[in-house]
Amino acid sequence: MHDSTVKGIEFATKSAGKDLRILIVHTRWNSPIVNRLVEGAKQTLLESGVLAENIVLHNVPGAYELPFATQKLLKASAGSTKPFDAAISIGVLIKGSTMHFEYIADATSQGLMRVGLDLGIPVIFGVLTCLNEDQAFVRAGDSSRGSNAHNHGIDWAHTAIEMATLG
Amino acid sequence: MHDSTVKGIEFATKSAGKDLRILIVHTRWNSPIVNRLVEGAKQTLLESGVLAENIVLHNVPGAYELPFATQKLLKASAGSTKPFDAAISIGVLIKGSTMHFEYIADATSQGLMRVGLDLGIPVIFGVLTCLNEDQAFVRAGDSSRGSNAHNHGIDWAHTAIEMATLG
Amino acid sequence: MHDSTVKGIEFATKSAGKDLRILIVHTRWNSPIVNRLVEGAKQTLLESGVLAENIVLHNVPGAYELPFATQKLLKASAGSTKPFDAAISIGVLIKGSTMHFEYIADATSQGLMRVGLDLGIPVIFGVLTCLNEDQAFVRAGDSSRGSNAHNHGIDWAHTAIEMATLG
Amino acid sequence: MHDSTVKGIEFATKSAGKDLRILIVHTRWNSPIVNRLVEGAKQTLLESGVLAENIVLHNVPGAYELPFATQKLLKASAGSTKPFDAAISIGVLIKGSTMHFEYIADATSQGLMRVGLDLGIPVIFGVLTCLNEDQAFVRAGDSSRGSNAHNHGIDWAHTAIEMATLG
Amino acid sequence: MHDSTVKGIEFATKSAGKDLRILIVHTRWNSPIVNRLVEGAKQTLLESGVLAENIVLHNVPGAYELPFATQKLLKASAGSTKPFDAAISIGVLIKGSTMHFEYIADATSQGLMRVGLDLGIPVIFGVLTCLNEDQAFVRAGDSSRGSNAHNHGIDWAHTAIEMATLG
Repeated sequence: MHDSTVKGIEFATKSAGKDLRILIVHTRWNSPIVNRLVEGAKQTLLESGVLAENIVLHNVPGAYELPFATQKLLKASAGSTKPFDAAISIGVLIKGSTMHFEYIADATSQGLMRVGLDLGIPVIFGVLTCLNEDQAFVRAGDSSRGSNAHNHGIDWAHTAIEMATLG
Repeated sequence: MHDSTVKGIEFATKSAGKDLRILIVHTRWNSPIVNRLVEGAKQTLLESGVLAENIVLHNVPGAYELPFATQKLLKASAGSTKPFDAAISIGVLIKGSTMHFEYIADATSQGLMRVGLDLGIPVIFGVLTCLNEDQAFVRAGDSSRGSNAHNHGIDWAHTAIEMATLG
Repeated sequence: MHDSTVKGIEFATKSAGKDLRILIVHTRWNSPIVNRLVEGAKQTLLESGVLAENIVLHNVPGAYELPFATQKLLKASAGSTKPFDAAISIGVLIKGSTMHFEYIADATSQGLMRVGLDLGIPVIFGVLTCLNEDQAFVRAGDSSRGSNAHNHGIDWAHTAIEMATLG
Repeated sequence: MHDSTVKGIEFATKSAGKDLRILIVHTRWNSPIVNRLVEGAKQTLLESGVLAENIVLHNVPGAYELPFATQKLLKASAGSTKPFDAAISIGVLIKGSTMHFEYIADATSQGLMRVGLDLGIPVIFGVLTCLNEDQAFVRAGDSSRGSNAHNHGIDWAHTAIEMATLG
Repeated sequence: MHDSTVKGIEFATKSAGKDLRILIVHTRWNSPIVNRLVEGAKQTLLESGVLAENIVLHNVPGAYELPFATQKLLKASAGSTKPFDAAISIGVLIKGSTMHFEYIADATSQGLMRVGLDLGIPVIFGVLTCLNEDQAFVRAGDSSRGSNAHNHGIDWAHTAIEMATLG
């Protein structure tokens, strides 16, 4: 999650996801970037053994809608025969000329934390909070924008599987 | 919600709102800007099939009042024959010489998030947090203030309809 | 609430307050400024038809005490024959050389928001968060400090009456 | 609480504390400063009529522990024959080279506010958030560090007594 | 917790931990630094009398996962024959080129505070929020990075034992 050279993280084996049902909620704003992240997450879930039928994608307009939609869809599934084991909430916020970025990012990051703690279901924070588009494309794995490009959607998928099977 | 060139977002067809009842709570401060936003939202709701009788407007003095009024009016309608399906909370905050802007914007954005999550009814964040008036007028669709003028009330109305029918 | 030239706000007629009971909690720090604000609020309540016996003033030392005192006094009145219909919480914070201002202002603005939403009784945010004394005196209506002096206590009183009769 | 020349605050008479039981929770970090503040608070409680046996001191390592310890000790006393009437939570945070100061100060000030509002028992915010040691020593009454030295522990004790007898 | 020269803190005797069961949740990001902190905490727990079998380590990917994992593991143990007496949540955040650091640090520090207050079990904040790697290595006890190196994991372990036996 950091730019540090000491970062680096290993995840569990590929079959860990075979019994899981994962919700991906993502924004439609900044879709060229968001779509890369969603695709990275989805592919990683599949490669980790999650069945295609158990990956549910839902989109909302912007990041402020992520906590509400995540909460509502997780709650709705709670009484079903196959409830969600985790959610990945994906969005891309890019600093603009007003203060919109700061207040949306703050309310969204606190809101997603609340939803996970309230429901006891892991909610993975998949929101990029970048100062410009290049930063976001690099973190969505677009190597044409930077040599260190890495699709963070991959990490969020691994994290969702790991947190879903926690304890 | 951002100034990015990669933004852009599509919304659903016009008839999606025909069975919905939508609350618009808006501030009276900065009314020349707020009124544009409210009008944009209202027109878009009508064009999306929401019946005029199902669009309820309520105004409050300032942005700090938005979470309380939104909560109270949503709760009051919960037991009625036609409860609200979503709320749009609209205000305009412009940076002044004190720190009033920062504390009001923070409490309001966190408060509106809380109200939506507490009640399970979508509350759309329609508060502009701008550094000057021109920024606000541009985001209220006044093309005399900037060539990229776009009335964000339009987006908030679409978002309200979409979130009201979520899941 | 802003310095913008497009601000400006109208309030309802004077008799709106005749059946209301209003709590004013105010700090004693910066009392020359606070007293102006309290007086402005009280006079406006009286002019709006609130009976003198239904305006209850309570003071606390500083702004951090406002949320607790407001909550406690509102709760205590809830079971009485004439409970409070709204509270106005008044204080003046002025930036000093430490970071005290920032943490008090943040906790107070979030705390007062919580109290209003928890209790379902409107709590008006009457806390000035200024960078110097002159800013505060101007917002307390001292025209010797600035030509645009306006006593914000007047607005808070109008807001309290309006929010008390909401819906 | 401010550096303003218009500040200044009066407290009630000395016998107000005679029936009260007050908890002081304080940190051990920065103890030369903290001890001054604790001593100032304790002496003031005694001078205000609080019995020595009714002043309970408890220490914790750092400021992040203050909300938890305050909550736990207040809750534990709630069922006793002489429960606490108020708590004073004392600590000293001084800006260092990392961002530790900011996140601890924010979580602590919000956490102590939550504890007071949750329990309905006043929790006095006795945490100095200073940019350097001299600022803290001055606010702990060390006149060798500044001519305007004043021990804020004195004010916190008065505030505790006043808030304990509120309403 | 500060860089101040007046800091310094003493902890209780070594046998204080003999009956305790302590959870350590730590991140895998920045593992060269995190591992030092975890090792420092674990060794200190052992030296303080905590049995090896009563020190449970669990790792998660990043800091945003700490509050959820801490909450879930503490809750799961609550009904067991030997529930956890405290948790130490360890991570290292280093400022990068986006705003990720700020939003993760804020949500994590507030989230861990919430978990402790909600559950009534002490949650020790073991998250370094540094502006560069050297700062983090120094606070993880790497004396090759700075002459004042000190492993903060040692302090967190002492704090966990002390808070677990509070009151």
